[in-house]
Amino acid sequence: MTTRVAVNGYGVIGKRVADAVRAMPDMELAGVADVATDWRIRTATGHDIAVFAATEQAQAGMLAAGLPVAGRLEDLLGQVDAVVDTTPKMVAAANLDRYRTAGVKAVLQGGESHATTGHSFVAQANYATALGRDTTRVVSCNTTSIVRVLGALHDAELLVRARGVLIRRATDPGESHLGGVMNTLVPERSIPSHQGPDARTVLPDLDVVTMAAKAAHTQSHSHFWSLQLTGPASREEVLDALRAAPRIAFIRMSDGLVALNTTVELMRDLGRPRGDMWEVALWEDVLTVEGEEAYLTYQVYNEAIVVPESIDAIRALTGSVTDGATSIAMTDAALGMRQEFLPVSARL
Amino acid sequence: MTTRVAVNGYGVIGKRVADAVRAMPDMELAGVADVATDWRIRTATGHDIAVFAATEQAQAGMLAAGLPVAGRLEDLLGQVDAVVDTTPKMVAAANLDRYRTAGVKAVLQGGESHATTGHSFVAQANYATALGRDTTRVVSCNTTSIVRVLGALHDAELLVRARGVLIRRATDPGESHLGGVMNTLVPERSIPSHQGPDARTVLPDLDVVTMAAKAAHTQSHSHFWSLQLTGPASREEVLDALRAAPRIAFIRMSDGLVALNTTVELMRDLGRPRGDMWEVALWEDVLTVEGEEAYLTYQVYNEAIVVPESIDAIRALTGSVTDGATSIAMTDAALGMRQEFLPVSARL
Amino acid sequence: MTTRVAVNGYGVIGKRVADAVRAMPDMELAGVADVATDWRIRTATGHDIAVFAATEQAQAGMLAAGLPVAGRLEDLLGQVDAVVDTTPKMVAAANLDRYRTAGVKAVLQGGESHATTGHSFVAQANYATALGRDTTRVVSCNTTSIVRVLGALHDAELLVRARGVLIRRATDPGESHLGGVMNTLVPERSIPSHQGPDARTVLPDLDVVTMAAKAAHTQSHSHFWSLQLTGPASREEVLDALRAAPRIAFIRMSDGLVALNTTVELMRDLGRPRGDMWEVALWEDVLTVEGEEAYLTYQVYNEAIVVPESIDAIRALTGSVTDGATSIAMTDAALGMRQEFLPVSARL
Amino acid sequence: MTTRVAVNGYGVIGKRVADAVRAMPDMELAGVADVATDWRIRTATGHDIAVFAATEQAQAGMLAAGLPVAGRLEDLLGQVDAVVDTTPKMVAAANLDRYRTAGVKAVLQGGESHATTGHSFVAQANYATALGRDTTRVVSCNTTSIVRVLGALHDAELLVRARGVLIRRATDPGESHLGGVMNTLVPERSIPSHQGPDARTVLPDLDVVTMAAKAAHTQSHSHFWSLQLTGPASREEVLDALRAAPRIAFIRMSDGLVALNTTVELMRDLGRPRGDMWEVALWEDVLTVEGEEAYLTYQVYNEAIVVPESIDAIRALTGSVTDGATSIAMTDAALGMRQEFLPVSARL
Repeated sequence: MTTRVAVNGYGVIGKRVADAVRAMPDMELAGVADVATDWRIRTATGHDIAVFAATEQAQAGMLAAGLPVAGRLEDLLGQVDAVVDTTPKMVAAANLDRYRTAGVKAVLQGGESHATTGHSFVAQANYATALGRDTTRVVSCNTTSIVRVLGALHDAELLVRARGVLIRRATDPGESHLGGVMNTLVPERSIPSHQGPDARTVLPDLDVVTMAAKAAHTQSHSHFWSLQLTGPASREEVLDALRAAPRIAFIRMSDGLVALNTTVELMRDLGRPRGDMWEVALWEDVLTVEGEEAYLTYQVYNEAIVVPESIDAIRALTGSVTDGATSIAMTDAALGMRQEFLPVSARL
Repeated sequence: MTTRVAVNGYGVIGKRVADAVRAMPDMELAGVADVATDWRIRTATGHDIAVFAATEQAQAGMLAAGLPVAGRLEDLLGQVDAVVDTTPKMVAAANLDRYRTAGVKAVLQGGESHATTGHSFVAQANYATALGRDTTRVVSCNTTSIVRVLGALHDAELLVRARGVLIRRATDPGESHLGGVMNTLVPERSIPSHQGPDARTVLPDLDVVTMAAKAAHTQSHSHFWSLQLTGPASREEVLDALRAAPRIAFIRMSDGLVALNTTVELMRDLGRPRGDMWEVALWEDVLTVEGEEAYLTYQVYNEAIVVPESIDAIRALTGSVTDGATSIAMTDAALGMRQEFLPVSARL
Repeated sequence: MTTRVAVNGYGVIGKRVADAVRAMPDMELAGVADVATDWRIRTATGHDIAVFAATEQAQAGMLAAGLPVAGRLEDLLGQVDAVVDTTPKMVAAANLDRYRTAGVKAVLQGGESHATTGHSFVAQANYATALGRDTTRVVSCNTTSIVRVLGALHDAELLVRARGVLIRRATDPGESHLGGVMNTLVPERSIPSHQGPDARTVLPDLDVVTMAAKAAHTQSHSHFWSLQLTGPASREEVLDALRAAPRIAFIRMSDGLVALNTTVELMRDLGRPRGDMWEVALWEDVLTVEGEEAYLTYQVYNEAIVVPESIDAIRALTGSVTDGATSIAMTDAALGMRQEFLPVSARL
Repeated sequence: MTTRVAVNGYGVIGKRVADAVRAMPDMELAGVADVATDWRIRTATGHDIAVFAATEQAQAGMLAAGLPVAGRLEDLLGQVDAVVDTTPKMVAAANLDRYRTAGVKAVLQGGESHATTGHSFVAQANYATALGRDTTRVVSCNTTSIVRVLGALHDAELLVRARGVLIRRATDPGESHLGGVMNTLVPERSIPSHQGPDARTVLPDLDVVTMAAKAAHTQSHSHFWSLQLTGPASREEVLDALRAAPRIAFIRMSDGLVALNTTVELMRDLGRPRGDMWEVALWEDVLTVEGEEAYLTYQVYNEAIVVPESIDAIRALTGSVTDGATSIAMTDAALGMRQEFLPVSARL
């Protein structure tokens, strides 16, 4: 049976979730809703996606702008089992009532607070607890990556404590004419930054503290971690634990993948849609273990990393797939996710 | 009959030409040659492209690095009708003898001088004069765009004189960790910059002077032109002349396409391979005509704009298609080139 | 007799005008007014500048923040002959009544429209017409540079027509954490951009059209001009006309001054306050003359270029100096302005 | 008695050391040596600094370029007690013999290895051990800041272990047209980065590990630290230890100093030569202590931070001042260094 899905908000995340829904064998995209009238929403029409107006006011504007509008958000909700809300930060909370009224399962994004839904979601960590719920929140790109990586070490009982520094991209490439930061670095105003506590909404046991800053680039966050291990470990033990987890891909400085932009270029070279990278890209040959401590760094492609989690969350809420590992495998196969990007890596 | 093609140099242009050759109904990619051993050439293997070593020394290095090497450049040349040389600036000149020895038609790129081949090529301007030649030079990205746009106005007998300012991207996105410029603008050291004279290698009659500078971004050049017309003209006359030419697409500020990055994002949204834009993107609603003068600005996606010309050049040299317009149409259809990117544009 | 001056707005321009007033032998800074409470206004206190609150609300906030506030703007206006208003764009218009009520001459900045004051000012062009007026508007940084350079050629009867492209910095260095543009170029939405018409508020005869774009750097605008001359001219004639004008400095690629950032570094090396450059920096060895056309490029240090004009405007309005050339000479000597920055330039 | 000093290398560091030598009451600048012929060395002439040629070849070039050359490096060495070598990385090692031959004390910079001199210097940590030596190495900007800050906590017996992430500027503002990185982040290829081990050349007991990356800005490094303390401590205890150390200045987010560029702008506003900041700028209101851990972040103005250490090193090697604290106080007073930049900070 096919799950019918709506996407509310056709922005950086929404357009990718819409594509991913269409790529899934068990899902169908009924349409997307938005308020925009410019090129961004017009590309949806070009992809034969039905476009709905998120509000009455938006409908008037979209019609006036010559857009073919299939109806209102409520019309769209009447046709679907689940909605993924990718509206801007804090807007989704106000939409929840509309989703409840329509009897539609709702997946929110990490811009919302944990309290909004009472459940925060990362597929590999807590798929089971989302089963059958009316709503969940896919955590933010940074938090998702933290749960994937630290969660893998936590599951392997290797991790005591994690202290991380997150260097964020300032804005997204498609919006970099609107703002961002230039020729500077902007540290968060307080420590810990919110990502550490946020990861504990999914993995309450994690002893994690994060500091964060915004840097003068538009593509990808990166994380630098100092880890206290449960005891002396070998580098291979740590790597094995990471390899056992899904959605972490391994890259290597020795292959010339030495900076955020080279990974982005690689994704373009791989022919990925929009050049997306859904995996955490972890530098395998940078990872260092010394005694009871480990150090690692990875890249978070913030435009796409939460897309697979959003897909899994749909299955969890609707109960269409009851096992998390099965859903993850379905999602990853349909998207073409990988643990290794190159057919063969450089001999060191 | 299928034209067998080799690409020598699997860099920014080479990998795109290789893809384009594979997309053509009348061509076959025999393989690519390079000297690199890192991720860049490894992606070719991932796409089932046969990789050859451009030199003996490179072969040793590639084998040592664990790359499956299909042979040497000479082996590759033995299998093909034509080679597109996309090696770094000034390297191709030295390769010409190898191509001649192998009896293979050779398409060089704009980094080489006109004198190297004695013929400079832009499909819409002088396809006919390249027919049957042993070699030609596809002019640079900037020059190609100049010939496309000014050539269209020239053909329509609208243009007396063109004075332009070219703002270049500093380096390509996949190489921006290696250099470029930061937080500055670097004007060319002399006026005119080379692009104006270079355009005259294709269109000798053009009265064109260019000034140029390098700016602190990685994606796309942009050109700003002041044009002296042959007489008072309407805006529609100028637009009609541009619309009659191939490979110019029209974008609009009123659609929200207000900066270089938004066009780049649009290409990603259109699902284009690597997010490429082969067309000159000209701002239709910025174009202004006042009396006998016109002003216009457009965007040159330097990573891809010469790809269609390279394809046409293969057909011209081999004589597989004798008519330029036919070749252009074949290329453009196979790549999916357009005059309009959006199904419908904003009503002004 | 000393002219007592107030500065309203202690931002990028205001703090520099305040410094310049203090550097003048015939002026005295009575104080500055602002609404800010953060480090920016606190540095004024550190320089023993009396700080006033621009509004009643601001006064409360400044006192609450622990700032020593000397009073309200009205108190400050009661002590001065003239005020330079450097408040953000469009705010000054509303302040004009306060200045008139206080009987204080008022110098506004280029963010305001010409109509606000009915007079637009560039010292070398129209000092005389500002004499004794109640108010004038120092035109914007870009327009000031256009009037200085094109005005010099116009005065020498060399110029028929000027077509220019202005590449603007996106935001100022001290505010680049708040916005700007990243990795892109943002063309103005229409041609001509406003600077051409704006220059005609000072030099009505100028035949000038400008196109403009914002680039991804924070320091300095730059202009690229194609000029139609009144007849065939030598390069030296054009240079002589420029050398005869004040406030144009000559720099050379051959000295290694090849980009906007090198000039900025040079100003720091010269020991200038805040690294300021009040002059238009024109590349002497880039300037090219071909037949009846000339081409040139120069750099506009937007943070400081209008400071000397603001000082001259004070003298013109108050009538303390009746001759423009005398005022210019006084200002330039006090600031240490130059026509050549280096003791000796590279032998070509 | 006045110490006569030479500076070899008039680049980013050298020109600042030359200025600082001139600002010291107990020193005299005999001249500078370099190999450049462009604007950079010409500004020295403008400041009435005697310029010498570092090599015979350079002398010919400098004379040919019209530079007034006072002689060769050997002539300069004959006039001085000490030389500060600020030549590019790895060049100084080869110069050591020339200094020994001339019987001149030599201060090298952090680009050289510890082994080159056998002594690495940070004034507050080990002035005494440099007394009377022939040569020492002032450690790099990053290492200097680490020793200042961690050394302060180490001296106060508060520190067990420090794990840090260093985000470096990619290139200096005056050289950003020559290279750097654009729109990316470039992590160091291995962990630990060299700064941690380097700090132990000065403070052997320090348990410190650093990770590092280069970001897309030109001004200032910044460090983010997770510290294991010797026991539970209060925030005030940690701050007191830092306040007791020289050359750490305190800044606050609550004053609006929220990013690297705002501090840089503040230095310009303070009227500092070249806008320099010799102090480590530590965010007082970001510093957090939780149980036995502390977290802090600070800014390292890499162009100037080693200048005061270079001055102190001259005194230590020549023995002109035998007490480190006295030398530090002399240097700091002459330069105008501060613990607080603003006369009063925002009330929180």
